Amino acid sequence: MAARNPLNIGAVARAMSNFGFAKLRLVAPYSAAFREARSAVGASAVLASAEEYRSVAEAVADCALVVGTTAIQHRELQHPLRRLESGARLIRRQLAGQRIALLFGSEKRGLSNRDLSHCHWLMRIPTREEHGSMNLGQAVAVCLYELVREAKPARPAAKHEPATSADLERITTLLFDVLSASGYVRPASAASAEEKLRRLVRRLQFEATDAEIWLGMLRQILWKLQSGG
Amino acid sequence: MAARNPLNIGAVARAMSNFGFAKLRLVAPYSAAFREARSAVGASAVLASAEEYRSVAEAVADCALVVGTTAIQHRELQHPLRRLESGARLIRRQLAGQRIALLFGSEKRGLSNRDLSHCHWLMRIPTREEHGSMNLGQAVAVCLYELVREAKPARPAAKHEPATSADLERITTLLFDVLSASGYVRPASAASAEEKLRRLVRRLQFEATDAEIWLGMLRQILWKLQSGG
Repeated sequence: MAARNPLNIGAVARAMSNFGFAKLRLVAPYSAAFREARSAVGASAVLASAEEYRSVAEAVADCALVVGTTAIQHRELQHPLRRLESGARLIRRQLAGQRIALLFGSEKRGLSNRDLSHCHWLMRIPTREEHGSMNLGQAVAVCLYELVREAKPARPAAKHEPATSADLERITTLLFDVLSASGYVRPASAASAEEKLRRLVRRLQFEATDAEIWLGMLRQILWKLQSGG
Repeated sequence: MAARNPLNIGAVARAMSNFGFAKLRLVAPYSAAFREARSAVGASAVLASAEEYRSVAEAVADCALVVGTTAIQHRELQHPLRRLESGARLIRRQLAGQRIALLFGSEKRGLSNRDLSHCHWLMRIPTREEHGSMNLGQAVAVCLYELVREAKPARPAAKHEPATSADLERITTLLFDVLSASGYVRPASAASAEEKLRRLVRRLQFEATDAEIWLGMLRQILWKLQSGG
C-alpha cells in the first residue's frame, strides 16, 4: 500500500481487521500521516503492527505471489487482468501455502507502471465504466470481502419452522368467525368466502411461532366482538 | 441511511456511483452534514439527487422489500438473518420488477429496533466475530459490490406484485387499532406492541392485491368493534 492520508490508512486497517487480515505493509508513507493514523482513537492491532518499507520491491520481497488491484478499465496493461471474483478464487487456492501480497496504489495516482512491474497479475473490481475509480478504503474492503466470501462454510441460517396446515386451518376458521361476527362475510356467501379466506391465508407464509401469535390475536378479537364491545 | 458525517455520506455516494446505484435516501441527516457532503469537490450525481426524509417509514414507503444491514452477530434479532451472499441473491431476483430499499444505520449506533421493525429481513456482512463493526462507507461498498457481482441479466419479475411498505404500514396501523379496541394491546405496552406488530406483518409476504383485501377486512372489524357490536 502506498497511501498518504491518515484517514485512508485507518480505513484500510479497519477493513483488514473486519475480514481477518493482519499484515499491513506501507510503502513510503508520509511518516506524519502514518503516525497520525496509528495514534487515532480505536486504531487497531493491524495498525499497531503495520510495517514501513521504502519500496514496493522490499515490501513484497518474501511473497510468492503479488497481485495488483485496479478499478480502471482503460489502461494499457501489460499484465493479465482478472475480474475480482476469479482472481480471488486463484488467490484462495494459494493462500494456504504461501505469502501473498495484494498491492493497492495511492489515492491520487493508483499504481504506477513501476509498481505494476512487481505484480504477477492484476485484479479488477467491476465498477462502472463511467465512474470506475474507487475510494481506497472501500476498494480494500471489497477485495478482502471477496477473499473471505466463500472461505468459511456458511453458518446455517436460523431455521424458521413454517406453520403446519393445521395451524393455517385454525387461523382460517377463526378469521372466518371474526369476519362473520363483524359483518364482512354474509351468510349467503359464506361457503365461497371460506374458500377465498383459505387461499388468502395460505398465500402468506406463516412461521409456526407467528401462527400462535396470530391465533391469540384473533381469539381476543372474536371474544370482544361476541361480548358486544 | 441515517448518517451524520459528511465524509461518510460522500463515501456512500461514491460507492453507489461506482457500482451503478442512483437513489440515495437519507433519513433525518444533520442538515449541515448533508449540505457539506453535497458541496464537496467531486460530489457525484448521486449526492445531487439524494433525498431527505424525516422517518424510515417515509423513506421506504414506495418500496416492496426493505432489507436491513448489519455486521454484528450477537444481537437479539427478531428477523430472519441472511448472509450477504444469499441475501443478495434473493434481492437480485426481485430487483428487476420492484423498488427495493437497503437500510443502513448511523455510524454510531447502527439500526435501532424501531428502524429494524420496518425491515422484511436482515443481511449480514461476514466480518470477524472479534471485530464485526464496519465503517459505513465500506459496508455500503461491500453490499453493493455483492449485488452487482454476478451481473447476470436480471430475471423477469415475479408474477405476483408484492405489497409496498406503505401498504404494510397501513395494515400494521389498522391491526394495532383493532387489537387496541379488542383489549389485546394494553395502553401501557402500546409502543413495544407496535414494533412487534410491524415485524410480525413484515414476516408475512403480502401481495399487493391481497393487502387491499386484508385492509378491507380490518376496516370492517374495527368499525364493528367501535360501533359496539
